[in-house]
Amino acid sequence: MKKYSEMSTEELLALKSELDRKYEEVKAQGLSLDMSRGKPAADQLDLSMGMMKVLADADLKCETGVDCRNYGVMDGIPEAKRLLGAMSEVEPENIIIYGNSSLNVMFDTVARSMTHGVMGNTPWCKLDKVKFLCPVPGYDRHFRITEYFGIEMINVPMLPTGPDMDMVEKLVSEDASIKGIWCVPKYSNPQGITYSEETVKRFARLKPAAPDFRIYWDNAYSIHHLYDDNQDFLIEILGECEAAGNPDMVYKFTSTSKVSFPGSGIAAVAASKANLDDFRRYMQVQTIGHDKLNQLRHVRFFKDLDGLHEHMRKHADLLRPKFEMVVDTLERELGGLGIGEWTKPHGGYFISFDSMEGCAKAIVKKAKEAGVVMTGAGATFPYGKDPKDSNIRIAPSFPTVEELEKAAEIFVLCVKLASVEKLLEA
Amino acid sequence: MKKYSEMSTEELLALKSELDRKYEEVKAQGLSLDMSRGKPAADQLDLSMGMMKVLADADLKCETGVDCRNYGVMDGIPEAKRLLGAMSEVEPENIIIYGNSSLNVMFDTVARSMTHGVMGNTPWCKLDKVKFLCPVPGYDRHFRITEYFGIEMINVPMLPTGPDMDMVEKLVSEDASIKGIWCVPKYSNPQGITYSEETVKRFARLKPAAPDFRIYWDNAYSIHHLYDDNQDFLIEILGECEAAGNPDMVYKFTSTSKVSFPGSGIAAVAASKANLDDFRRYMQVQTIGHDKLNQLRHVRFFKDLDGLHEHMRKHADLLRPKFEMVVDTLERELGGLGIGEWTKPHGGYFISFDSMEGCAKAIVKKAKEAGVVMTGAGATFPYGKDPKDSNIRIAPSFPTVEELEKAAEIFVLCVKLASVEKLLEA
Repeated sequence: MKKYSEMSTEELLALKSELDRKYEEVKAQGLSLDMSRGKPAADQLDLSMGMMKVLADADLKCETGVDCRNYGVMDGIPEAKRLLGAMSEVEPENIIIYGNSSLNVMFDTVARSMTHGVMGNTPWCKLDKVKFLCPVPGYDRHFRITEYFGIEMINVPMLPTGPDMDMVEKLVSEDASIKGIWCVPKYSNPQGITYSEETVKRFARLKPAAPDFRIYWDNAYSIHHLYDDNQDFLIEILGECEAAGNPDMVYKFTSTSKVSFPGSGIAAVAASKANLDDFRRYMQVQTIGHDKLNQLRHVRFFKDLDGLHEHMRKHADLLRPKFEMVVDTLERELGGLGIGEWTKPHGGYFISFDSMEGCAKAIVKKAKEAGVVMTGAGATFPYGKDPKDSNIRIAPSFPTVEELEKAAEIFVLCVKLASVEKLLEA
Repeated sequence: MKKYSEMSTEELLALKSELDRKYEEVKAQGLSLDMSRGKPAADQLDLSMGMMKVLADADLKCETGVDCRNYGVMDGIPEAKRLLGAMSEVEPENIIIYGNSSLNVMFDTVARSMTHGVMGNTPWCKLDKVKFLCPVPGYDRHFRITEYFGIEMINVPMLPTGPDMDMVEKLVSEDASIKGIWCVPKYSNPQGITYSEETVKRFARLKPAAPDFRIYWDNAYSIHHLYDDNQDFLIEILGECEAAGNPDMVYKFTSTSKVSFPGSGIAAVAASKANLDDFRRYMQVQTIGHDKLNQLRHVRFFKDLDGLHEHMRKHADLLRPKFEMVVDTLERELGGLGIGEWTKPHGGYFISFDSMEGCAKAIVKKAKEAGVVMTGAGATFPYGKDPKDSNIRIAPSFPTVEELEKAAEIFVLCVKLASVEKLLEA
């Protein structure tokens, strides 16, 4: 296999003509495929259908005797705290259970920090400048929250071990206007990277200039493995922070969105008592309580951590062929061509693809014209600006294997075509 | 029946001695009764148990074909907009469906106004002073939201027709720092008053000095009648505002909290398209969407407005005897004594009691010591401060009729005792 960069202009032109022909053929098929969002497929959702009747004709009191059909219990029923505590690897007393979306909790946490400050510190809206560190590529919806509140975002490169901790340590210790960092520490969005033990320990030992600096630890894929035998392991940060004398430095977010039903799951925050008390102070004004019946529904259906793991193995059985098919296609079609690199995650919902510099937008545009919707190029960076225009997030979960096969073929075709065009421009 | 105020000191002392004796007897019984919060009783919640299986083995797509088990549909499925639109007497396109709590939506609306302003106006956090009008007595949780955000609250007296509109009109037109007013326009909390047609029309025709003034119209009890034949009627304000050239002046909030399950219902906002677009701008950052399965669950169970009304009649059958028993007890025991006045609502969840000035705290304290928990005296006023110390909110829904009978007897005893003591002080 000859690298594209080593081809002569003639070779590139011949290749382009062949690729153009194939591309026109594909376009003519009028396909409509979607690899844009990390949505579970219908067969994954079928796995949780038992939840829809688990509360029928049942006693709907939680274990403390509270009727879950009525008002009360602001921060979660005990059995839900235990279940999501186990999932988050913390004690139930370090858990608050929220509504249907951890993203909403993160939004509210930033909103509250703006208007009321963090644990008695100055509200961010009274400060001239507030900044967040953003490991890149990362999750677009994190970046949108900080952008919405006018928080300046600073890119931090992702390494195979997690964010560049030399840079994180330096910035956080020098600049008191840096109030947070967005992290997806396990099977990261979009690369599927799990932070190394050293990275987590360095996070826990940060010496931030700002007393109200918090790590936004969005552990969205904690139990979302693709393999039984080949799993990543992430060490637990709340305990590490406590051991390092920084007990209040981290908020851990989780949810069952990709365990049960996206949009109809339950979310949780794990943090120190002092942080959770800070959360509870606004919660008692904001709400009388979240949906306890849905908490009970989850507990009755999953029962415990073993039940969750067993359930996630069923998800894995459905997701694994899709991930492998995309990775196999990338390797078969693009291996050795020098026009792209990609990750091979052991879990999570995404594969990250890096094209040659300056090609990502063109690839996504071509794919769209051929009927394959990808996440917008740039979406994995703050402000939607990928400085190298090279990162593309691939979400293989939602299409069927057959659709995905077609979509992956079209994607690699678009990568080849955009790369040839780029090289011919030069 | 002799008025207490016309009794001689000797008569009062004799009465006090008899009441003291009865009070000690009651205390000795060690009762534990609760008339404090507007919670439905267990038999009311039983009415909605069919909801717990309505989604079992069913097709969970909404009418546009979207799988409600997955991400998407930020502002509500069409059939839920239609159902809560009918309940709110507006078109479905004037509805956004939210999560489990309209209180949470109100909180978020104030929070957003603080950080981002209302429809392009200056964010309230950048203003020196922001004020809200608070009809009193009113709902404690409304007042807590505005207090939490440091918004100055101005008391406006409630009249039998609703808030004192002379005062509202004057203040709103003169003071641009007044940005809102809290209203429970139907079967108001705690008085059970329904705003008159003239009041609603005067609201719609307000000429606020502030372009971002909004009426927070919390129509929490819109279909919560106690009687089939003796119902209050509230005219629809969104249409009135539009007709008066003030289409954007009102946010209408509603929820099914006291229709289906408190904490597990669905909430909605009805407003103009411009307002809803303003809401949607932050929603698309805050959430991927609310719980669509719960929306579907409500629609499949209630079907339509007729279904809602039929269901509410069952609630009424359970609530009516409780309201009537409390009112009967008040009339029988306190009628003609000149030591208290109370409302006789046709719907909602509360009866409002006004004691002689300076007696409310003492009554609530005595009731508590005798085993009857009432809403804290003062709670119905901003900052918890009732200037006359006379208003007490009675919530008859949660106890059984038998418990309520006992609780009402103890309450009137405490009213008598505190009144005698007050008169003897003078």
